[in-house]
Amino acid sequence: MNLITQMAQAKAGILTTAMRRVAEQEQLDAEQIRLAVAAGTIVIPANVNHCNLQPIGIGRILKTKINANIGNSAVASCPQQELEKLEYAVKFGADTVMDLSTGGDIGKIRRAIIAHSPIPVGTVPLYEMLARCNSVDNLSEELILQIIEEQAEQGVDYMTIHAGLLKNQIPLAKKRLLRIVSRGGSILAAWMQKSERENPFYTAFDQICEICRRYDVTLSLGDGMRPGCLADASDEAQFAELEVLGELVNRCRNAGVQAMVEGPGHIPFDQIAANMSRERECCKDAPFYVLGPVVTDCAPGYDHITSAIGATMAAYSGAAMLCYVTPKEHLGLPNARDVRDGVIAYKIAAHAADVALGKPGARDRDDAISQARANFDWDRQFELALDPAKAREFRAAALAERDLPPDHGKGDENFCTMCGPNFCSIRISKNL
Amino acid sequence: MNLITQMAQAKAGILTTAMRRVAEQEQLDAEQIRLAVAAGTIVIPANVNHCNLQPIGIGRILKTKINANIGNSAVASCPQQELEKLEYAVKFGADTVMDLSTGGDIGKIRRAIIAHSPIPVGTVPLYEMLARCNSVDNLSEELILQIIEEQAEQGVDYMTIHAGLLKNQIPLAKKRLLRIVSRGGSILAAWMQKSERENPFYTAFDQICEICRRYDVTLSLGDGMRPGCLADASDEAQFAELEVLGELVNRCRNAGVQAMVEGPGHIPFDQIAANMSRERECCKDAPFYVLGPVVTDCAPGYDHITSAIGATMAAYSGAAMLCYVTPKEHLGLPNARDVRDGVIAYKIAAHAADVALGKPGARDRDDAISQARANFDWDRQFELALDPAKAREFRAAALAERDLPPDHGKGDENFCTMCGPNFCSIRISKNL
Repeated sequence: MNLITQMAQAKAGILTTAMRRVAEQEQLDAEQIRLAVAAGTIVIPANVNHCNLQPIGIGRILKTKINANIGNSAVASCPQQELEKLEYAVKFGADTVMDLSTGGDIGKIRRAIIAHSPIPVGTVPLYEMLARCNSVDNLSEELILQIIEEQAEQGVDYMTIHAGLLKNQIPLAKKRLLRIVSRGGSILAAWMQKSERENPFYTAFDQICEICRRYDVTLSLGDGMRPGCLADASDEAQFAELEVLGELVNRCRNAGVQAMVEGPGHIPFDQIAANMSRERECCKDAPFYVLGPVVTDCAPGYDHITSAIGATMAAYSGAAMLCYVTPKEHLGLPNARDVRDGVIAYKIAAHAADVALGKPGARDRDDAISQARANFDWDRQFELALDPAKAREFRAAALAERDLPPDHGKGDENFCTMCGPNFCSIRISKNL
Repeated sequence: MNLITQMAQAKAGILTTAMRRVAEQEQLDAEQIRLAVAAGTIVIPANVNHCNLQPIGIGRILKTKINANIGNSAVASCPQQELEKLEYAVKFGADTVMDLSTGGDIGKIRRAIIAHSPIPVGTVPLYEMLARCNSVDNLSEELILQIIEEQAEQGVDYMTIHAGLLKNQIPLAKKRLLRIVSRGGSILAAWMQKSERENPFYTAFDQICEICRRYDVTLSLGDGMRPGCLADASDEAQFAELEVLGELVNRCRNAGVQAMVEGPGHIPFDQIAANMSRERECCKDAPFYVLGPVVTDCAPGYDHITSAIGATMAAYSGAAMLCYVTPKEHLGLPNARDVRDGVIAYKIAAHAADVALGKPGARDRDDAISQARANFDWDRQFELALDPAKAREFRAAALAERDLPPDHGKGDENFCTMCGPNFCSIRISKNL
């Protein structure tokens, strides 16, 4: 067995370039990173065929990472649009990107994204399988293995597979208000019910691991049973699947394959911490990769906010990576502007949690921007802002309303644009 | 002593119309409301001269309320613009509004707002005092009492006064990165330092209470020492002032004057719960009215999000009212669009916390909108959305991208606009 994966190398005592890079980024000791990669509590998704990748680490003790989903649907978008979304995602600070294309030339879009992406690229291979075989009825283990191999060969760094949703869980889903809201989960449940066979991702799991091992594809164990509304949160269906995901984490680790676990979804704020603890216990501290969670169902159009609230609590309670949700969630596919809004909302959530957890260096940026505020150093404030262009735009608008020039704010004329010169608390209290 | 205030009446065993109304809104027992108003753990800001007011209650056991700040500055805005902001605030669900005007004809703007507002109106009378006397040097107890009386007579329901920031706290502020970021606090600190006298709001506090008692103005005890950055959070200055606020709460209660207490500000996520507990202890469970808190300093342009995260945690941990923060915070004054964004972000925070705390009926709306999702009942989803217009707009855009008519979504053609017909998890799992 060759030492291909980061995990296999870590177990063999090899400190890879990727591990050193992660240690540096995270201000942690390289040996600590190696031990955690060996144990499976940190993953470094880095397909050996993703040439221009700058690897990052994902794990509870590292800075919280965020993922941006892009990809088209059967009708909308083309490779050029997806590359534009990729550019936005990278520019505004996404740590990974998932191509969730479900239509058009899926392979072409993916190749373009991998070629242009310096950050890890994830996929849900089931979408291409469905597009390829036309009907869920034609899904087979052979097709599954074929497409996973093709995508692995192309350089996909991590893949979501819904191998934990088993046939015996389907009756639990039927008790729910929204049953199964995971696309992959619902498709597999339909296949299992019709064929009366077990989930093919589960039955072919060892062969899937073997492919992943050869390219160092990290498996993201999908939560097909993630609750789609508050009423379905933390129920039997969700936790039955989580038990299976725990089993699959062990099988990955034994095979030397890196694995993370996906999590909910829609969860009331008070249940988030308990969900994170339960995952950690069930899945032996495998990195937890959560979607939101959304903390109220009733704000369509603003789910980047409802979910950033949940995501902060999730990261604070142990989630390692946050999958962004855009303002278009529940209503349509995001465009480039939505990608920006989603990424920034999640940068905020991840950073707020890292500060709260006292991760190394996390608060430096806050202290620096606050010092710049104290100094009325607007340029420095903008440099340190998560979205400098937006901050500049708002300040410029505020100055224009006061008929002040855009470069206002030097020397004695300093005052906050909110309050005006006579009510500028910073100016007044500087003179105390 | 006449029984004018809600508190005085509650203490005398009188169940007022306002208390009955609050009980009905909150699905609680009217006698429970009366007892809490008598004890001061619920306030009902309702100036006897605010004619068209529909009273609401503010207290930890009630649904979390949100406040929207409007008002002009020395240069921008006019009464008409402020009425437009008021209309937006009310339309999108603000429970109270504060007129923070600092320039122009402050009295005229306020009268217009009170005349048009069905929700309680708050002010910071210091702003009008400053505008009236030109310089902070001319501030006097006489002017303070005169303006408070004028505003009370006009029908202001609650007033923020910074009576807790005392002279001996100023050295503590000087140790801070951002010293004093409260406008009122910084102005009073400058006055105290120059005059070498104690805070005039503190020295005149009993007379202020006497005015408030005659009109039933609720006092909102302002936190002049609220931290303006994470580095200054939970420090000596903040807690020294909080101790004084606790003393003032007692003095209000003894005078039969309703009082709430204002809170921070900028606070790391992990310190929010402890801040809420400390306030409850210091101020004997007086309703806590918090500004955010913002959980990271480095996202100017997105502080409605950074603060909605903190506000959810604050409300979950015991805050009774959340003062919104708009995207323009730190950069300029909000316009009507910013008011909408701020109000919705705070509706989300308040509602998410109420659901998490299991407040009576809080989750009904979530369950109803999720049932509408299960039924593909788009109209009902929009009706139940916190911002129906925004949700409709996004759905219409998504349909247009697919060349589908705007009324699409009846009968067998149902599918979520995100995923398209073949990948619609709700449609697929309905058929299980």
